[in-house]
Amino acid sequence: MNFRSDNVTGVAPEIMAALAEANVGAVTSYGDDPITERLSRRFAEVFEREVAVFPVATGTAANALALATMVPPYGVIYGHEDAHIQVDECGAPEFFSGGAKLLMLDGADGKIAAGDLEAVVAVGGKGGVHHAQPAAVSLTQATEAGTVYKMDEIAAIAEVCRRHGLALHMDGSRFGNAAVSLNRSPAELTWKAGVDALSFGATKNGALAAEAVVFFDPAKAADFAFRRKRGGHLFSKMRFLSAQLDAYLAGDLWLRNARHANAMAARLGQGLAAVSSARLRHPVEANEVFVELPEAAIRGLLAAGFEFYRWGGETSACIRLVTAFDTEAAAVDAFLAAARRLAGGRSG
Amino acid sequence: MNFRSDNVTGVAPEIMAALAEANVGAVTSYGDDPITERLSRRFAEVFEREVAVFPVATGTAANALALATMVPPYGVIYGHEDAHIQVDECGAPEFFSGGAKLLMLDGADGKIAAGDLEAVVAVGGKGGVHHAQPAAVSLTQATEAGTVYKMDEIAAIAEVCRRHGLALHMDGSRFGNAAVSLNRSPAELTWKAGVDALSFGATKNGALAAEAVVFFDPAKAADFAFRRKRGGHLFSKMRFLSAQLDAYLAGDLWLRNARHANAMAARLGQGLAAVSSARLRHPVEANEVFVELPEAAIRGLLAAGFEFYRWGGETSACIRLVTAFDTEAAAVDAFLAAARRLAGGRSG
Amino acid sequence: MNFRSDNVTGVAPEIMAALAEANVGAVTSYGDDPITERLSRRFAEVFEREVAVFPVATGTAANALALATMVPPYGVIYGHEDAHIQVDECGAPEFFSGGAKLLMLDGADGKIAAGDLEAVVAVGGKGGVHHAQPAAVSLTQATEAGTVYKMDEIAAIAEVCRRHGLALHMDGSRFGNAAVSLNRSPAELTWKAGVDALSFGATKNGALAAEAVVFFDPAKAADFAFRRKRGGHLFSKMRFLSAQLDAYLAGDLWLRNARHANAMAARLGQGLAAVSSARLRHPVEANEVFVELPEAAIRGLLAAGFEFYRWGGETSACIRLVTAFDTEAAAVDAFLAAARRLAGGRSG
Amino acid sequence: MNFRSDNVTGVAPEIMAALAEANVGAVTSYGDDPITERLSRRFAEVFEREVAVFPVATGTAANALALATMVPPYGVIYGHEDAHIQVDECGAPEFFSGGAKLLMLDGADGKIAAGDLEAVVAVGGKGGVHHAQPAAVSLTQATEAGTVYKMDEIAAIAEVCRRHGLALHMDGSRFGNAAVSLNRSPAELTWKAGVDALSFGATKNGALAAEAVVFFDPAKAADFAFRRKRGGHLFSKMRFLSAQLDAYLAGDLWLRNARHANAMAARLGQGLAAVSSARLRHPVEANEVFVELPEAAIRGLLAAGFEFYRWGGETSACIRLVTAFDTEAAAVDAFLAAARRLAGGRSG
Repeated sequence: MNFRSDNVTGVAPEIMAALAEANVGAVTSYGDDPITERLSRRFAEVFEREVAVFPVATGTAANALALATMVPPYGVIYGHEDAHIQVDECGAPEFFSGGAKLLMLDGADGKIAAGDLEAVVAVGGKGGVHHAQPAAVSLTQATEAGTVYKMDEIAAIAEVCRRHGLALHMDGSRFGNAAVSLNRSPAELTWKAGVDALSFGATKNGALAAEAVVFFDPAKAADFAFRRKRGGHLFSKMRFLSAQLDAYLAGDLWLRNARHANAMAARLGQGLAAVSSARLRHPVEANEVFVELPEAAIRGLLAAGFEFYRWGGETSACIRLVTAFDTEAAAVDAFLAAARRLAGGRSG
Repeated sequence: MNFRSDNVTGVAPEIMAALAEANVGAVTSYGDDPITERLSRRFAEVFEREVAVFPVATGTAANALALATMVPPYGVIYGHEDAHIQVDECGAPEFFSGGAKLLMLDGADGKIAAGDLEAVVAVGGKGGVHHAQPAAVSLTQATEAGTVYKMDEIAAIAEVCRRHGLALHMDGSRFGNAAVSLNRSPAELTWKAGVDALSFGATKNGALAAEAVVFFDPAKAADFAFRRKRGGHLFSKMRFLSAQLDAYLAGDLWLRNARHANAMAARLGQGLAAVSSARLRHPVEANEVFVELPEAAIRGLLAAGFEFYRWGGETSACIRLVTAFDTEAAAVDAFLAAARRLAGGRSG
Repeated sequence: MNFRSDNVTGVAPEIMAALAEANVGAVTSYGDDPITERLSRRFAEVFEREVAVFPVATGTAANALALATMVPPYGVIYGHEDAHIQVDECGAPEFFSGGAKLLMLDGADGKIAAGDLEAVVAVGGKGGVHHAQPAAVSLTQATEAGTVYKMDEIAAIAEVCRRHGLALHMDGSRFGNAAVSLNRSPAELTWKAGVDALSFGATKNGALAAEAVVFFDPAKAADFAFRRKRGGHLFSKMRFLSAQLDAYLAGDLWLRNARHANAMAARLGQGLAAVSSARLRHPVEANEVFVELPEAAIRGLLAAGFEFYRWGGETSACIRLVTAFDTEAAAVDAFLAAARRLAGGRSG
Repeated sequence: MNFRSDNVTGVAPEIMAALAEANVGAVTSYGDDPITERLSRRFAEVFEREVAVFPVATGTAANALALATMVPPYGVIYGHEDAHIQVDECGAPEFFSGGAKLLMLDGADGKIAAGDLEAVVAVGGKGGVHHAQPAAVSLTQATEAGTVYKMDEIAAIAEVCRRHGLALHMDGSRFGNAAVSLNRSPAELTWKAGVDALSFGATKNGALAAEAVVFFDPAKAADFAFRRKRGGHLFSKMRFLSAQLDAYLAGDLWLRNARHANAMAARLGQGLAAVSSARLRHPVEANEVFVELPEAAIRGLLAAGFEFYRWGGETSACIRLVTAFDTEAAAVDAFLAAARRLAGGRSG
């Protein structure tokens, strides 16, 4: 019963089947194959417009390549201080961009506020040669706190971007979870809201290793392909990346998988809300639950074989529980039963 | 009947099976899993010593990350002018190294000669602050000309490296083909011959997308892991990279696959040698055949549905034929029959 | 009467004379000349030990080259959020280091506190491949707030560095002003306190364009010379950089100049402390004064021809006054008289 | 009697005087000063059009910053294999561009031929994602062989650039020497001939440390200023860079100085042509002379106190003699007398 991350999971059966199905005969390498062509059409349908789509294998590659295409080497990228690009990519955005600067904001529940962004950009020295230049904003959707940016929150941030000429990137490593949570179309969640480029994640939601970078204005993607190749992220047997993403979109598998993961998180969240000594740190809006528990309860849960991370250091009283496309309700219920047993009695 | 490249192929059945087999349950991500652990042991056995092994998904990533770990940003990397790192990676070594300089040598049959290397390094200005500093040599084994460096050739180059304090990298995108061709052990072909790091390729020889960077002195690999992560090349579901490589080594699949590919190339080469108007450009020592044919014959072969590249430009009279683990003898024989028909009669 | 910055000044006469004196005959270029040799000896005397000294022409170059030599591309550099390396170098440290990450702390009076540094480094993920790696701390001495780190403050920060294996860099763009303020020897202020490398500034204190990067362990400076050349910062006519620094050190010109600048700032600070509606934002410990004044007073001072910057934006009520080696007491007194006239009456 | 390089010289008296003259009072830093403004107007006059001018202190900075502004990180820069950017800048172009690739051509007398350039660009894979992209050509004028590109040679190369969409850079570290040699206007030598950006050198021809990067289409210089700052090449006391260049242009000092240097080289060349055992390696068209001499003669000249470099290694039979703005005819004649004595008698 492993709640450590959605990347401890294996591959969804539909995607495994697609890999096997793609393994027939010889096809032209590097993306000039029928599956990759079909994938491009499918993305255009899902996003209701022409888009430029580039499959890669990791979320770090997707984010770093997208941002490097959007900002000059002397650019500033704004985002939340807990964002994956800042904390968990070993400096990939700096590397791929040639040295851009990440200026991160704090903000409740993993989200930056438009007002805070406006304030920091306003003094960012745009045009002044001494200062790295405000260039892009990156939003994580769903966030690292298991929450989602609401439509009006995105709109307000997009307005700041428009006013200051900043590009807007969305790290959608868990984009499916956000889409299900907000119940809005992919188009509404992105380009209609002002997003310029999306890292569309699949790995955490059932793929083996596949993400797509989507540019909503293909003209702005002109040099992405060179950067991808130069970054070692162009697969020779591209059909196997494309096949994963193709199966992921087919029949809305991505939404079904995300819906399940979100439901399991909601079940966890609701169950924990009823545990007297537990305190949810953030609203549960996607597939992650952050909960503070008594130390004895945390130790007890670990001893009982549940796997999860303490959040914020080895002695933290807050744990993170991540659900996925294959999380079983029985596992959730077992966890809740143990939590009630270990942590429910304190106030009883 | 596609002879365009060994990367137009699909995945070997043993490797596809290993992927399915790995797809069971939850495991810790990013390489702390049993399959990756087993893989490390297997590499130590194959190379008869402790090694540091890093799976990545593309050959470009393997080469660029290995070289970036071996040279300073102001370093010079020497190699053959036709090498993949120079011609086919869109500047990946320059990118990953932070701007190292590639100084390439010509040389017959895709190989650099130790004497030529010595001459150019000797005037390379080692120690002089005005000059990018001689730092590493990269050999492609098997070469881009379908030949292989012989043991004495490697030894002579390694001696130049030793004399000038240069690291020696081997681009083994087709290492299996070279190993079979030379009939020497992996250890003899690499560290015993003076090689410091190897890009051990699997993709072209049956994997979906898997290569391993092998450092023979683990102490020299200290910062590779950070560079890999920062390059977006650390897979969260690492088990699926490791499973490919594990199956590739198991039961010497890699050597069996390479042996077959080489045999098919030899069959092609021998057949073409008997075609009166054909001229082999290089000895056929691995899984590639370069042959000059009359223009009418080339057009006839293309019209007959055989797929291959002209080498050196769209009007070149030289074509490249690449065989792979799944090339069928019947396809080779069909090609030869067509070639004899189209090109054999000219002088007859 | 220009208080905008210490870089609006010209060149101290002693340094101008040294340039003229150096302009005799032909000498070997790029630093192999008698003046540069003498300079190295002089630095060894001033710092009471063997050091590696590298003249460059700008403070940005000094800082960025020093830091790039001290951290890997995937390193983290810690400092104060107002530091020049973060705010005023257009991303130079990121550029020269190949993409290192600057994580900046706030802190009163332009200084970071050892405790805050310890807290952030402790969760910095040292050793964990997902995170940019804690690598160096940069202190600005004197600070951007016109204050100086006290000996015990430096010692406490150096202890954090020692504990976590971080290199300690000092941005001494105004090192002379700090030395005078603290009345301690250059050795005590740097290597004896745990500083590994110093950007020793001269431009703001009387040079035309000259700074020296000083490494206290020459073995750690091994690749600085290559980085300097590659950065375009190795002067062919090096004697003219060295001559500036040589004259700057000769007869303690650097301390005399700094002493004068500090005295002028103290005179300003004391005078303003007696102005009823003025409020000093920071202690005046070097050659900068930050003072909040009524808007009418600021406008009046500007109208009277005094030049200075508002600090923190065009509508800020805080102004910065910088004194220099050539600031005249009469100019200070004129400013104070005007300030008393414009701002002193409010409470009267 | 030092013929080692034109950078062993000091500063021309007119430029030294300009530095002293600029050293009056306080002016706004970083280039917003009257001298820098005057300089821009002067460049516009000299080049007969609006230009964007950026003073920097070294030729390496000028070249690397100019090229970085002209090519993407995945670009290819073509030039001559002996060019300063390839041989003598420790990889600065690769560093500033973020990893561009230098592909160098050989060619007689330090010059590349348009036909050779066309041939290599034609197979450069423009548009193909696997290949670093043809982006710019850099010509050295005067060349490293002491020759100059003739007008028709430049035109032919510019035509190749136009045909393939390549930017054309001119490394004019010795531009004055070339201008004098060709007796054409600066406009004719550059933008009228198809040059997009020029590194306009002054240091070797009398300045202390000053070069100007000139973009003939200011719109294409948009991000140069940020790159210059980020590279640490924006001087705070900019007036002292500008004053050098201003004095350099004033009254055609640059042409007078270059004319003298060229005349001294011609005198050397003519004198050596009459020495029986001497062989001039290249035509003497600027201020450098390459001559092959018997070993005994070389040793004799060194023993007599003449200073120069052997060219191509410590045992080379070819020496390089460089003249400058301050070379005395008597020194030339002394050298020629010694050469005649040491090398002239062999065949006599």
